[in-house]
Amino acid sequence: MTPAKSTPAKSAKSDAARAPAAQMQHFETPLRLDCGVHLAPWQLAWQSWGALNKDRSNAILLCHALSMDQYAAGISPLTERRGWWDHVIGPDKLLDTNRYFVLCSNIIGGCGGSTGPQSPAPNGRPYGLSFPGVTIADMVRAQAQLSEALDIPDWFCALGGSMGGMQVLQWAVDYPDKLFAAVPIAATARHSPQNIAFHEVGRQAILADPDFHGGQYADRNVKPRKGLAVARMGAQITYLSEHALARKFGRTLQKRKTLSYGFDADFQIESYLRHQGRSFVERFDANSYLYITRAMDYFDLTQGRPDGLSQRLRGSATRFCLVSFTSDWLYPTRESLYILRCLNAAGVNVSFVEVESDKGHDAFLLHEPQMFETLQGFLNAAAEARGL
Amino acid sequence: MTPAKSTPAKSAKSDAARAPAAQMQHFETPLRLDCGVHLAPWQLAWQSWGALNKDRSNAILLCHALSMDQYAAGISPLTERRGWWDHVIGPDKLLDTNRYFVLCSNIIGGCGGSTGPQSPAPNGRPYGLSFPGVTIADMVRAQAQLSEALDIPDWFCALGGSMGGMQVLQWAVDYPDKLFAAVPIAATARHSPQNIAFHEVGRQAILADPDFHGGQYADRNVKPRKGLAVARMGAQITYLSEHALARKFGRTLQKRKTLSYGFDADFQIESYLRHQGRSFVERFDANSYLYITRAMDYFDLTQGRPDGLSQRLRGSATRFCLVSFTSDWLYPTRESLYILRCLNAAGVNVSFVEVESDKGHDAFLLHEPQMFETLQGFLNAAAEARGL
Repeated sequence: MTPAKSTPAKSAKSDAARAPAAQMQHFETPLRLDCGVHLAPWQLAWQSWGALNKDRSNAILLCHALSMDQYAAGISPLTERRGWWDHVIGPDKLLDTNRYFVLCSNIIGGCGGSTGPQSPAPNGRPYGLSFPGVTIADMVRAQAQLSEALDIPDWFCALGGSMGGMQVLQWAVDYPDKLFAAVPIAATARHSPQNIAFHEVGRQAILADPDFHGGQYADRNVKPRKGLAVARMGAQITYLSEHALARKFGRTLQKRKTLSYGFDADFQIESYLRHQGRSFVERFDANSYLYITRAMDYFDLTQGRPDGLSQRLRGSATRFCLVSFTSDWLYPTRESLYILRCLNAAGVNVSFVEVESDKGHDAFLLHEPQMFETLQGFLNAAAEARGL
Repeated sequence: MTPAKSTPAKSAKSDAARAPAAQMQHFETPLRLDCGVHLAPWQLAWQSWGALNKDRSNAILLCHALSMDQYAAGISPLTERRGWWDHVIGPDKLLDTNRYFVLCSNIIGGCGGSTGPQSPAPNGRPYGLSFPGVTIADMVRAQAQLSEALDIPDWFCALGGSMGGMQVLQWAVDYPDKLFAAVPIAATARHSPQNIAFHEVGRQAILADPDFHGGQYADRNVKPRKGLAVARMGAQITYLSEHALARKFGRTLQKRKTLSYGFDADFQIESYLRHQGRSFVERFDANSYLYITRAMDYFDLTQGRPDGLSQRLRGSATRFCLVSFTSDWLYPTRESLYILRCLNAAGVNVSFVEVESDKGHDAFLLHEPQMFETLQGFLNAAAEARGL
């Protein structure tokens, strides 16, 4: 495949403190999707930090989570705040840009510049709900074409938390020869019914918003703000542990001494959630939220069979490092233990660490020394094995 | 206090298989609420099964949970289905109507016939959001006036699950001399920030519904159906354990063989939740949902002090039996253990059982032999001590 336009990876800036210029890969060749649709044209927006070495063997693929985007480091132009892993990417940081070329691509279906439901359909209007359904495998297939277009023969490591971890696992299953190492963090091999249930509530909140207009809200210059905010509020609870909520907020009142006996945000936790909802609406597209949560719900690498995942991983030369967090109840440690069991059954090289943390699922985004130590050791050993 | 109208308890039917006639207690004397309002007139709707003995010493007060009502046994006129504890109340059942007089009162603020936001305000229109905020203590104060009106000098036992358990605890704190025995099941002494967070998401879903009309939807003959359904869907997840969802639904598709790649209810769990949402809207009032969740959020018997609850229980002669469920993550066992600690610190007679169940918080509504054995033993011993 020859990409129509290409921004060569070697032009990427290596200074993580500054947001690199927008990088975009456009494709005229259709992207085959699991639903049967061939999507064309399509594009992926991506960001990179550090530079490719002569052998093009030092590339790290960073896969982002549901509500994130490609602006992992530096100041994001979308939020004007530091990226979600700014503390991890840069010279002498864990993902050391003196050593590695780090690339993060926005997913297909996303709203960070990649083709998604807000992109113009062939009729010139935004796709809305006429955008085809996408899967985690579709996201990974798109990334694989991006790698080809950028002339990256394989990845030294694919790495990501939450839905990013699902993409890493999907890469390992679909492109084992393209992955030297894989780090799925706080991930799962299949979305549980409880995971699906929480997503479904969020989707129904969006669909119930009168400003949703069947997904064609952009035409009317409105957004389903309230519905998306409710979806985000509900999701946010699942990202934090009960203990972290108690520690951070307790039953402390929000800038008041007495109860209102009404429906104001009496408690700090209510005020926090309302703020999370409001600010999410500013930076995220409701249709993308629908499509991406759906992709996660569809995710099931086991294909419903107890040995499904181990069968698909058999013979893989990829080396894995799994990380879970003690207080993550969204994708709890038992999900990583399940992946561990499958990898061992497949005879694949794997290490696993459960990090002690009370911060819940979102711990992967935070300063977690145990996680950093683990990943540092794993990456150093893998880099040595790779001759980097 | 002399009630304006009274349906004497002794006329209550003892046949639990038939729904007893509607029972209503009307009060002209104002009900003092924690918010400072004196509510008048007001009424409580209640149901009873069995008959009071000569000493009026065999009365059991059954306290209902958030989404329940006074129709605990027999066929509910609201749902035309069996009451939520129909398997527990009746001749030779756990709450044996040959032995006990069992009364369940709808709470103040509820929508089962008691005064609440759907009742006419002094101006003749439904209160809506002009209804005063209520607390668990207000609900209990109203029940205490009902007992007086019905000439029930004290309760042999107060018993309830979830919010019902909160009322039982509030009774024990506020009216220790009126309670021979107390059984809070799957309860908590204070609503945690995570509990508040889930409620807040539900409330925001209701408030976001364009058919809410500031709470005056009844005037327009509409209901905030979608908002209340979303609230119920989210709450329903918290009532069930992750394991029960996996066992009941797994990732099974709903009457289809392939994924829709759209936003239909592909999975059984989605179809189940949508049904829960839809059917709840038919039987429950959105304003009541707002007020009752708020009352639960405000619930804190500790008054923010580590020894708050034990101080308030000191000297109580009530005998307690606490029950929790291993898989309840809404009011987990540690909440009952906390109450247990406070009761022991107060030198109060208490037993505690953690029931092994994978059914989550809703286990208290289901057939749980361990729970029944425990309660049977406790009630028999208490009845013997009371000379029943």
